[in-house]
Amino acid sequence: MAGDFASTPKPPYYAVIFTSARTPVDPEGYAQTAEEMLRLAAGQPGFLGIEGTRGPDGLGITVSYWADLDSIRAWKAHADHRTAQRLGRDRWYRDYRTRVALVEREYGMHD
Amino acid sequence: MAGDFASTPKPPYYAVIFTSARTPVDPEGYAQTAEEMLRLAAGQPGFLGIEGTRGPDGLGITVSYWADLDSIRAWKAHADHRTAQRLGRDRWYRDYRTRVALVEREYGMHD
Repeated sequence: MAGDFASTPKPPYYAVIFTSARTPVDPEGYAQTAEEMLRLAAGQPGFLGIEGTRGPDGLGITVSYWADLDSIRAWKAHADHRTAQRLGRDRWYRDYRTRVALVEREYGMHD
Repeated sequence: MAGDFASTPKPPYYAVIFTSARTPVDPEGYAQTAEEMLRLAAGQPGFLGIEGTRGPDGLGITVSYWADLDSIRAWKAHADHRTAQRLGRDRWYRDYRTRVALVEREYGMHD
């Protein structure tokens, strides 16, 4: 994921903006689970791409892109993802916010 | 901005998701301009908040939140911001993508 842009189709499609502040707790467990969730998300129906980064202050932003709301709901309810979400709340995140947004326009440096 | 979550109102409102890859060029000029643009954006009509971070690989994600499309258009067309955008294209960014999205839902760790 790191360093790559998501190749999303022509809008409309959905974005899930996940902003999080990490705890210093269990960094290895976190990194392994994050990688597993990334791999698992990429195999879900309606998954279009993901972009994410975390700064030195522990603030992270991950934006995942989805074809529609049903795909987002199904991924949120996925059993392994639910386990990871619970671990996130209990151990890894000091705080987070999730925003579900309909992408209406997209343009790049060369268009 | 760093380490803070944006305190946005109840949806709907707009998000501008700006994903960028930096060049190693002119880091001081970039940092100063980025700070000026942050201060200037925060004073614009319809500005609701901003969240941003950049990882060690140079990938950055900045999400700014706005009341409506008119506010976004006005900020994009602001003279000082246009100058900064041109410098960004010419010097500071290897690549970027901008996505304009209507936030429909928002929830946090405790709700």
